[in-house]
Amino acid sequence: MTTYHALTEAEAVAYARTIPDLFTAGSELSSHEIGDGNLNLVFHISEASTGKSIILKQALPYAKVVGESWPLTLDRARIESEALQIQESLCPDLVPHVYTYDKDLALTVMQDLSDHVIMRKGLMDGNRYPLFAQHIGRFIAHTLFYTSDLGMNQQEKKLRVKQFINPELCKITEDLIFDDPYRDAETNDIPPAVRSEVEALWVDKELLLEVAILRSGFLTKAQALLHGDLHTGSIFITEDSTKVIDPEFAYYGPMGFDIGAVFANLLLNYAAQEGWSQDQLARDDYRGYLLGTIRDIWHTFSGEFRSIWSLYGVDRVFAGENYQEWYLEQVLRDAIGYTGCKMVRRVHGLAQVADINKLEDEAAKDRARRIALRIGTALIKHNRQAQSINDLLEIAAEAIEQK
Amino acid sequence: MTTYHALTEAEAVAYARTIPDLFTAGSELSSHEIGDGNLNLVFHISEASTGKSIILKQALPYAKVVGESWPLTLDRARIESEALQIQESLCPDLVPHVYTYDKDLALTVMQDLSDHVIMRKGLMDGNRYPLFAQHIGRFIAHTLFYTSDLGMNQQEKKLRVKQFINPELCKITEDLIFDDPYRDAETNDIPPAVRSEVEALWVDKELLLEVAILRSGFLTKAQALLHGDLHTGSIFITEDSTKVIDPEFAYYGPMGFDIGAVFANLLLNYAAQEGWSQDQLARDDYRGYLLGTIRDIWHTFSGEFRSIWSLYGVDRVFAGENYQEWYLEQVLRDAIGYTGCKMVRRVHGLAQVADINKLEDEAAKDRARRIALRIGTALIKHNRQAQSINDLLEIAAEAIEQK
Repeated sequence: MTTYHALTEAEAVAYARTIPDLFTAGSELSSHEIGDGNLNLVFHISEASTGKSIILKQALPYAKVVGESWPLTLDRARIESEALQIQESLCPDLVPHVYTYDKDLALTVMQDLSDHVIMRKGLMDGNRYPLFAQHIGRFIAHTLFYTSDLGMNQQEKKLRVKQFINPELCKITEDLIFDDPYRDAETNDIPPAVRSEVEALWVDKELLLEVAILRSGFLTKAQALLHGDLHTGSIFITEDSTKVIDPEFAYYGPMGFDIGAVFANLLLNYAAQEGWSQDQLARDDYRGYLLGTIRDIWHTFSGEFRSIWSLYGVDRVFAGENYQEWYLEQVLRDAIGYTGCKMVRRVHGLAQVADINKLEDEAAKDRARRIALRIGTALIKHNRQAQSINDLLEIAAEAIEQK
Repeated sequence: MTTYHALTEAEAVAYARTIPDLFTAGSELSSHEIGDGNLNLVFHISEASTGKSIILKQALPYAKVVGESWPLTLDRARIESEALQIQESLCPDLVPHVYTYDKDLALTVMQDLSDHVIMRKGLMDGNRYPLFAQHIGRFIAHTLFYTSDLGMNQQEKKLRVKQFINPELCKITEDLIFDDPYRDAETNDIPPAVRSEVEALWVDKELLLEVAILRSGFLTKAQALLHGDLHTGSIFITEDSTKVIDPEFAYYGPMGFDIGAVFANLLLNYAAQEGWSQDQLARDDYRGYLLGTIRDIWHTFSGEFRSIWSLYGVDRVFAGENYQEWYLEQVLRDAIGYTGCKMVRRVHGLAQVADINKLEDEAAKDRARRIALRIGTALIKHNRQAQSINDLLEIAAEAIEQK
């Protein structure tokens, strides 16, 4: 048994050598710590002679956000590695392979993905990923279905709920997504140009009711094992490969929360095209690509979900066709509501998105923020009436027509 | 540490002597095993010289139902005693006092309630309990509110969810309440006179959809720590005292499930008045008493719930008035749906109720079954449209007008 301590680069290399059947005995390994140091140490360890490489990710016992530091459980490393292993068993091509997890060191050894880029960056560079919708649609369909009461033994599922009770990381979401943006909280960082729009949220009773209902779903609806933080910064991508990483927020929650995270981050980039695109034609074109991606994700997800449900559903009572319709409708509605919540908090809450904040043109940046707020609030208000993914696409289209 | 074994009466007496400040040292204690032997041993231990007495309840590692025996976790004794202790901290007058819980022996030592009667029996005898509605209304308001995200720390609540993961006992409910009655299951015991009504349930798509939705709420909606089996056989009562016992089915589920259990069992007795009442006048009168009790329970529950929420609510986001309205509406709807489910299964499923089955007049018994099925199915179909407790009362009233 090892006592927990933050690894040095030399220790990381020594640890990497213990992984069976990977590096050549005695060969030279180099190590670089490539994490941002806020939450985790991330060692990239490579063998020059063979080109093989590996990632060691070690949780730190604190979180640093905007200069502040607060203690954070090391148990999140267990949650992350156990969630990754479940996801790998369901979608082996869509997550990094986990070689091993060391509980005492809060350390996960996993596949190196440095030939991929972070999707948020890729979208900011104007790239397109033609397979992404199929990949992520399949990822959410399979990881959500097979961890739910629809697709796994319902008594084992209850033990999974227990395994993934994750109070500390859920608390971050409960505060930063569902509370602070809707009041004058210290954590907010309100861009002056949208202050009046933001203050209007705080007194919009219709909006606040829907946020409260969505928040109660996050707190109580133990449908499936969620990734829990499925934004475009948690996705490594190339033209032909998609890898979902960092499920340390994993817990049993409403399916729509993961789907909404993907949609929201595509729509934040959609709003940010005010500044990224060179001209109106390019802007319309890229926005069309983003909305098409959302539409394709929903269709891939819902088609795949229905298909595996029909083939592999474990529950007689849930096998009725009407129930399947009802179920997917409520997943869609939740997804639309959570999309809205995840957009709003990125405009003026803690931890905003580079898609908008890295824009150099201040006027474009403020227009992007306004569009994001407009889409976000409209989705939140509409969520319980939604009938089709087109409702979301229409709200997004209308938001850029307003001035 | 003691190894688990079923206690003899002599061992039960010896154990009882170890409870501090109860019996007089050296005094004579007598013991009677008064359990039905199906799930638990129940020793009633009394001291003749002082009249003091106590109950030792020991879980057995199996369940016997209709002659069959299957293994059942001893962990249910932990769940029961921990739930009792939480309930006692919230409503000390409404549950038996727990002196101690012995994990190794799966043994709970608790207050003797033999001066009370089982409420189901009391209702069958035509008794009235004028304080019951206030008592049980307060019990459900306080135990549900203060174990939910509305009334306790939301991170500690997650640990409570973990503490009360209860797969084996939930499975019994999932099968016997939400599955078997809606198909030709071996566990059913279908009275010949209602076979055609029962078979009609199995192909009623509207009904089956609602049952599936209610079942998914039971599986996923972790709102509050439920008693989990709150029928009139789990309530000890006198004219001025109400004691809720046997929370071994406790787990985090939808609030409406506990409320529905109480309503359903009052309505089963209401149906059974076909046979218990001496004449039409007495029948109408007692039925009026039962419906009035349901109305009073709902009003006590909802009034108390709103009141403690306003005074002791822990959550800013949930403090809005609109949200409180929305919340209570969905609790009412769930309660109405679960009332229906809990009635239907008692007519032709496993473990039927004495209220109906002990009737001597076969024609009255069959009329009671028909009324119970009629109310149950109507409540299930109506649940998601319900606006007020009057909806339930009207459905119950209409059901006895039909022939």
